Amino acid sequence: MSRPDPADVRQVTCVGAGVIGAGWAAHFLAHGYDVIVYDLNAEAEGQMHRIIDAAWPSLEKMGLANGASRKRVSFTTDLSKSMESADFVQESAPERIDLKQQLYADLDRAMPNDVVIGSSTSGLLMSDIQARSENPSRMVLGHPFNPPYLMPLVEIVGGKKTDPAAVDWAVAFYRHAGKHPLKMDREVLGHIADRLQQAMWNEILYMVDADEATPEQIDESIIYGFGPRMAIMGYCLLFHLAGGEGGMRHFLKHFDPSVSDDWTRLPSPPIGDDLIEKMVAGCERLQGDRSTPELNALRDEALVGFLQHFNKVTGAAK
Amino acid sequence: MSRPDPADVRQVTCVGAGVIGAGWAAHFLAHGYDVIVYDLNAEAEGQMHRIIDAAWPSLEKMGLANGASRKRVSFTTDLSKSMESADFVQESAPERIDLKQQLYADLDRAMPNDVVIGSSTSGLLMSDIQARSENPSRMVLGHPFNPPYLMPLVEIVGGKKTDPAAVDWAVAFYRHAGKHPLKMDREVLGHIADRLQQAMWNEILYMVDADEATPEQIDESIIYGFGPRMAIMGYCLLFHLAGGEGGMRHFLKHFDPSVSDDWTRLPSPPIGDDLIEKMVAGCERLQGDRSTPELNALRDEALVGFLQHFNKVTGAAK
Repeated sequence: MSRPDPADVRQVTCVGAGVIGAGWAAHFLAHGYDVIVYDLNAEAEGQMHRIIDAAWPSLEKMGLANGASRKRVSFTTDLSKSMESADFVQESAPERIDLKQQLYADLDRAMPNDVVIGSSTSGLLMSDIQARSENPSRMVLGHPFNPPYLMPLVEIVGGKKTDPAAVDWAVAFYRHAGKHPLKMDREVLGHIADRLQQAMWNEILYMVDADEATPEQIDESIIYGFGPRMAIMGYCLLFHLAGGEGGMRHFLKHFDPSVSDDWTRLPSPPIGDDLIEKMVAGCERLQGDRSTPELNALRDEALVGFLQHFNKVTGAAK
Repeated sequence: MSRPDPADVRQVTCVGAGVIGAGWAAHFLAHGYDVIVYDLNAEAEGQMHRIIDAAWPSLEKMGLANGASRKRVSFTTDLSKSMESADFVQESAPERIDLKQQLYADLDRAMPNDVVIGSSTSGLLMSDIQARSENPSRMVLGHPFNPPYLMPLVEIVGGKKTDPAAVDWAVAFYRHAGKHPLKMDREVLGHIADRLQQAMWNEILYMVDADEATPEQIDESIIYGFGPRMAIMGYCLLFHLAGGEGGMRHFLKHFDPSVSDDWTRLPSPPIGDDLIEKMVAGCERLQGDRSTPELNALRDEALVGFLQHFNKVTGAAK
């Protein structure tokens, strides 16, 4: 058994030195790990250092772990060498299923143990990626958000051949490494967050295509409209609050599809009792024992801080 | 001519004392206006004061205008009286077209001048709302985001019978009143921001309905994933940056629909040359003369501030 305790991981190997792979390297370095980056292209080393150097000032502001240093990264084009002392592997190779299947088979042979391998894939399923590997039980999805050295979320789920213990290990490790692990109940293309983003993005493309809005108007409507709210509360809790004392149950019955189906090219699903109960139950768990006025006050307190910060940076960042 | 200069508005009449109407009243009070709130239900006065009082601490933190006071609001159930000395009217009545058409005809008779009337409607078009009015040329959409006393965006567009000068007046007034006016080029159901939200919301409902995710997982994926980014940059500029030096042109060609169409129930439109050119031109205007590395650094600088603030409030607000 060569899989260490999640708290004892010392060396992380990042496979792929692109924006995501090198971004992961910067994250792990800032959290005090030794990092080896593998890329088959020797010229990727320069880009890797540029990405880590660009990220470092932000990571210093967020706070470095004891002993964290940019010097604790090394680059190699030798896959076997990069695996020798890996306690965890984060794979961020190009999004081609044939390439990933071969890569995972190679990783498997180069590292004949049960060290966990996490994949940054956005558009592939682990069940497909692991299909041609000898030891697929330690392979999990570990999908980050760009930039990986700042955004907390990592979506985690196993494939058909993944050992649930490997999924739980990954959840514990990512949390220990400063990430916010989101353990999914099942595989779905696009995972969770990218599915929501893609629905919005496709509506954006339809609106621009139909001259209903320009890209500038779209971005303004996000930054000055619902954007700041989404940094504080997710849509389920926000709309639960929008339902007033009646909460999500009132919200779903009040905003029936006939009212809003012309607001987007994606029609609402039928709002049946089962769906209402699932939404209500989830929102009540999210609310916990906090009253609606209490949550509204917390939302506003958080928004004030965000908006004050936004007013400072908006001229520069937007 | 009784329409004042946008900078000379002293008294605002808010029609409707619900969450949106009273929220507007709180906003205008904080910005130093005298506010009259009309509601046909006398019992709405208590709710109005509760909403204004709940909003006031946040408004104090955001900074009150000179002379701004909660005492400068009065409530009436007399429509004509509420219109007597109005320099601007913000209408936030229930979302029923028959009710709105009658209300606007009544407002018109009660205020036989060209004072601008802005509607908070989310789901109706001004062309329909103004249909039965004598003087529809001064009636515009002025759609806020909840809570109206904090969120900056106001979507503004005229109906078929609206005088473009009234639209421009509203843009200038809302900006003077501390809002971020977004002038739309044309009417579209749901306006802009709600269309994007609705596409995402409908995908959320589909995912929960299919047990692909729970409401808690959905909200986590937003708050820790793409939410914070959306408070800083809109999707067009974010994806323009995600395209690297190739920008939006590379992004649209790289993420072709076949890759991501299974990520949401809303398929992408065909990515034709016209659409690509519209997106690229808009993103280049958004980028201005700032380089991509420069914008990435600004994005990260803003994200660090947001995340540091979020880490402070997250335990409370999420």
